[in-house]
Amino acid sequence: MRLYDYLDSGNGYKVRLLLAQLGQKYDWTDVDIDQGQTRTPEFLRRNPNGRIPTLELDDGTNLPESNAIMWYLAEGSRFVPATQIGRAQVLQWMFFEQYSHEPYVATPRYICRHFPADHPRRAELPDRLAKGRAAFAVMEQHLSSRQFFVNERYSIADIALYAYTHVAEDGGHNLEAYPNMREWLGRVAAQPNYVPLLARPK
Amino acid sequence: MRLYDYLDSGNGYKVRLLLAQLGQKYDWTDVDIDQGQTRTPEFLRRNPNGRIPTLELDDGTNLPESNAIMWYLAEGSRFVPATQIGRAQVLQWMFFEQYSHEPYVATPRYICRHFPADHPRRAELPDRLAKGRAAFAVMEQHLSSRQFFVNERYSIADIALYAYTHVAEDGGHNLEAYPNMREWLGRVAAQPNYVPLLARPK
Repeated sequence: MRLYDYLDSGNGYKVRLLLAQLGQKYDWTDVDIDQGQTRTPEFLRRNPNGRIPTLELDDGTNLPESNAIMWYLAEGSRFVPATQIGRAQVLQWMFFEQYSHEPYVATPRYICRHFPADHPRRAELPDRLAKGRAAFAVMEQHLSSRQFFVNERYSIADIALYAYTHVAEDGGHNLEAYPNMREWLGRVAAQPNYVPLLARPK
Repeated sequence: MRLYDYLDSGNGYKVRLLLAQLGQKYDWTDVDIDQGQTRTPEFLRRNPNGRIPTLELDDGTNLPESNAIMWYLAEGSRFVPATQIGRAQVLQWMFFEQYSHEPYVATPRYICRHFPADHPRRAELPDRLAKGRAAFAVMEQHLSSRQFFVNERYSIADIALYAYTHVAEDGGHNLEAYPNMREWLGRVAAQPNYVPLLARPK
């Protein structure tokens, strides 16, 4: 299989971290999102929504959406619960991540890293950061009595939420007020076969 | 089980439509989102993220996030594919719905129905509608050669995308340019045990 990806993308990193922890070999293609490489006719044939990551399977099927890719790769493994309610709760946190967290944690980081200080998109930051703090408050409360998000076991829900939370300060967030979350970040980073965000796949 | 919901919510409607089609009985509690009823201490104990729908199971577990609730209810039924790639593709479209569609189709409808014509949130409409048209273009292309989103069978991916698409015009969208999508809307509405958005559960 081949992952079409962008090294600094947290969404791509979710899939890379899971693949490393599954011990799964894969080919990797770097797509430069700043140079419009997700908008070429060739890329849009892989993902008409024009986003990385997308995983090309050995039969040529292209699967986009980071959290759907993780589900595909991890179903039946130790990274997805064996119970019906556990699986639903993993999905609960992955939908939370895409709707209530990613636009307010990943997007501020993108804005800060890709647009100059006088760019009009910087005006979005205060509102996005406020909504990001609301997401962190939900996570902090949940983690006040838990080691991991679901069933006290590391799962793809933790990977999904870790990917952008651990670099949230790049986007102007401050994680000092969230001690439970910071301990959880440390527990994720201590998992076997952990790889950091910018480790280029071989 | 008991669904905490708001009758005009497309996210809640997803769950109501699926429950009707599964023939599953449930209790229903109307939560008035405009009166702050999702922000009360009692509601926040059910869902710390303060959103409907949330499903209370018979053992007292509270499960939020419409698409996670649908997965919980439909796993193993005819509404979720039997193949690993089929399940991942259903999730692909459900994550597409929450990230690339809902904020640009559901939110404009919310703004138009809940805020007066001179309200500052109306300024969000042009950008949201443009991004909604981008999501519709992806759906229209996908449906140019298909009856349903995954595996040519009606699934919870269709329910997820139908819920706000079929009332998109309430938010200022115009669906005339999407004939494949309009035919698909008709196919969904013709499914056995279909219920309309505003049908109050008994």
